Amino acid sequence: MKLEMICTGEEVLSGQIVDTNAAWFANTMMNQGIELQRKTTVGDRLDDLANTFIERSQHADVILVNGGLGPTTDDLSAEALALALGEELVEDKDWRLYLIELFKKIDRKLPANMLKQCLIPASAIRIDNAEGTAPGFRAKLNNAWLFFTPGVPIEFKAMVKQQFIPFIETTYQPAQATLLHKLLTLGHGESFLADKLDVMEIPAGITLGYRPSAPHVEVKLFARGDAAIKQLPAFIEKVKDTLGTAVVTENCPSIAQAVHELLLNKKRSLSIAESCTGGMLTNQLIEFAGSSSYLHQGLVTYSNQAKQNILGLNAETIEQYGAVSIETAKAMAENVRALGDSDYALATTGIAGPDGGSEEKPVGTVCIALVSRRGCWVQTVQLKNRSRTIVRTMSCAIALDMLRRSVLAEDEVQAVIVPYSFIPCSDSKIVMY
Amino acid sequence: MKLEMICTGEEVLSGQIVDTNAAWFANTMMNQGIELQRKTTVGDRLDDLANTFIERSQHADVILVNGGLGPTTDDLSAEALALALGEELVEDKDWRLYLIELFKKIDRKLPANMLKQCLIPASAIRIDNAEGTAPGFRAKLNNAWLFFTPGVPIEFKAMVKQQFIPFIETTYQPAQATLLHKLLTLGHGESFLADKLDVMEIPAGITLGYRPSAPHVEVKLFARGDAAIKQLPAFIEKVKDTLGTAVVTENCPSIAQAVHELLLNKKRSLSIAESCTGGMLTNQLIEFAGSSSYLHQGLVTYSNQAKQNILGLNAETIEQYGAVSIETAKAMAENVRALGDSDYALATTGIAGPDGGSEEKPVGTVCIALVSRRGCWVQTVQLKNRSRTIVRTMSCAIALDMLRRSVLAEDEVQAVIVPYSFIPCSDSKIVMY
Repeated sequence: MKLEMICTGEEVLSGQIVDTNAAWFANTMMNQGIELQRKTTVGDRLDDLANTFIERSQHADVILVNGGLGPTTDDLSAEALALALGEELVEDKDWRLYLIELFKKIDRKLPANMLKQCLIPASAIRIDNAEGTAPGFRAKLNNAWLFFTPGVPIEFKAMVKQQFIPFIETTYQPAQATLLHKLLTLGHGESFLADKLDVMEIPAGITLGYRPSAPHVEVKLFARGDAAIKQLPAFIEKVKDTLGTAVVTENCPSIAQAVHELLLNKKRSLSIAESCTGGMLTNQLIEFAGSSSYLHQGLVTYSNQAKQNILGLNAETIEQYGAVSIETAKAMAENVRALGDSDYALATTGIAGPDGGSEEKPVGTVCIALVSRRGCWVQTVQLKNRSRTIVRTMSCAIALDMLRRSVLAEDEVQAVIVPYSFIPCSDSKIVMY
Repeated sequence: MKLEMICTGEEVLSGQIVDTNAAWFANTMMNQGIELQRKTTVGDRLDDLANTFIERSQHADVILVNGGLGPTTDDLSAEALALALGEELVEDKDWRLYLIELFKKIDRKLPANMLKQCLIPASAIRIDNAEGTAPGFRAKLNNAWLFFTPGVPIEFKAMVKQQFIPFIETTYQPAQATLLHKLLTLGHGESFLADKLDVMEIPAGITLGYRPSAPHVEVKLFARGDAAIKQLPAFIEKVKDTLGTAVVTENCPSIAQAVHELLLNKKRSLSIAESCTGGMLTNQLIEFAGSSSYLHQGLVTYSNQAKQNILGLNAETIEQYGAVSIETAKAMAENVRALGDSDYALATTGIAGPDGGSEEKPVGTVCIALVSRRGCWVQTVQLKNRSRTIVRTMSCAIALDMLRRSVLAEDEVQAVIVPYSFIPCSDSKIVMY
């Protein structure tokens, strides 16, 4: 089965938005064992769209078309397909009724242009949109089934999962059984990981892939066929042994989610004091429902005054050691923990840049403290030559990793702070109390 | 001049990486007045690549090819072009010497596979790579000039700026002048905006586009040609008049950035107390360098206990009115403002979901308070049927919009809270003091 994708929309083609739908789709299909063969991106021009549909339908079996289903004049996908098919657009009466009912229910006037979305080519089969007002549809053109989906990510993803994948599964031969296992790593570059894994013997039918996405590199182990699937668990263990502390979680997209689940399961509470990460750390946990049960408070004390007023730091500590220091980070964590008598507290203070660095403490210097009922661990990391966003993102990940290791190791001292190959360790200081 | 792009590489096609080069390129060319007509993405298969080169070279005048120039076995662009041209690969002796010299200079051994990069098709013209070891090249195939560039972003961008754009400018007619103006809107759907603008008379040469990206919809006004550019400023004013309060900023990607710049320019200080938005609001401002000069503190008081301990709220206020109430939001804002004697304070408290709602206060109920030295404004919004992330994202945007309007209007009462068409206003309460 040859699968292609056509992305429409001037804003995708012109680079106004980065096409994350396409990456998500290719990745999702890969997890189903189906490889995307080609992706074509065209703008909002009727002839261009129709010609692309005709041309690609002579090569592919299935074409997922994304975008151009909305209510505005630059939404041309249905019209272009009708042109390619040599058909009229026909109103889908069921969807019209659905929209009228929907707007009645939420007590709002149905905008006139909404009804344009009910027009689909005569031979097309409507596909329900559970998340929005524009229906999808599919139609056969030359060799290929063209499957039209909305551009809004939440609607697109729901339609792919609920409608497109089942359609593929029932219409085409079942693909070979596949299994994907993902190891999330932190603190090491792709080439460092590859250097370690390149010397391993990989069983037939298993492939290794790397997906760098700051602050993580995900190592993907993909098994194709029953024999390979059987060998996968043992191979996973070998890879984990080889990578050691680099692996921070498995089949989980972020360390924040891993920590969230860990704190929930272990019933441990947390307080946070942030300076340079400025709410990012707290926000990453509150993103998950249920975080209220363990997160007492997250205090962003960006100014020195706030560090004193809110966290009760001594002016002398800040003056003597500086706002970015092991001593300040330690005091921030200790004081915020005490405010809520939490099991754990994290604190960050650093120079995120682009300005504010000195020779002694260059941009990218961040002190991260973890305090538990048993002790305090602080480290200074040097995230040099990185953007403000990356310095902040990495600092959050390192803080969460310290917390994760501490909870898992029941505060055993040596387990909390581990070396990261891509953070210059020569400049890192580690202090334990 | 018809410009197309071909992106190569399994990791781009399979969604392992999001193709930011393509978005950057399209955007860069758009700023030069040249629209990208089509983008094709193909994997690392020799025949596929050669066939795509042949096919697209019959339609386009210029094709920018990105990726596949590196030293590893899956880098096939030069070989595929040679196949398409029916030519041999020939070693570029100058580049070989350049590489040997380069590695001598940095005192490192030249890896054997590096020299593969010197092989380009016989009729191709080498293009220097100032940032890396793989040279680009260009060759004529059918109607089109194919221009090959490396996939590494820094190398790619330098080559486009230093070599591709000058090549285009000298080879083709100067492009028609263009001008793009963007209006960022908040609180209204694409179809609501389109309904208002569809009745306007649009001057020839100007096109309207919409880009929805929660919590905003961006309205793009694109003028092509000198006559249209001349008419654009007057048309922008008309569109702004028509959209009224929906427009929150211009040529600026987010309301957070607009507020950041406003607070810096007006030298106003801010404190934040967050419950349901949980650090997101504070984080959105700290994302920008310089925010330390106006942001006193951002306190995430997620639990009722924290609201009392940290913000000094009365237990009675919370008990009598609830944690999600106008009274609690008001007290949070007033108390956090007092902690730092800031000019302004924002507070949010709500039910982000998916659980925790009641009949009286369903999921999506959020109370947002703004306090200044002159007064307090609070509103309850009902962000029904939306995900946790969207509830939190929209709450932040609405809070920032209240602040923005208050600073601009010098606290004039009526200007701070405006209706949003896609938030059910029937349930919104507005209180002013």
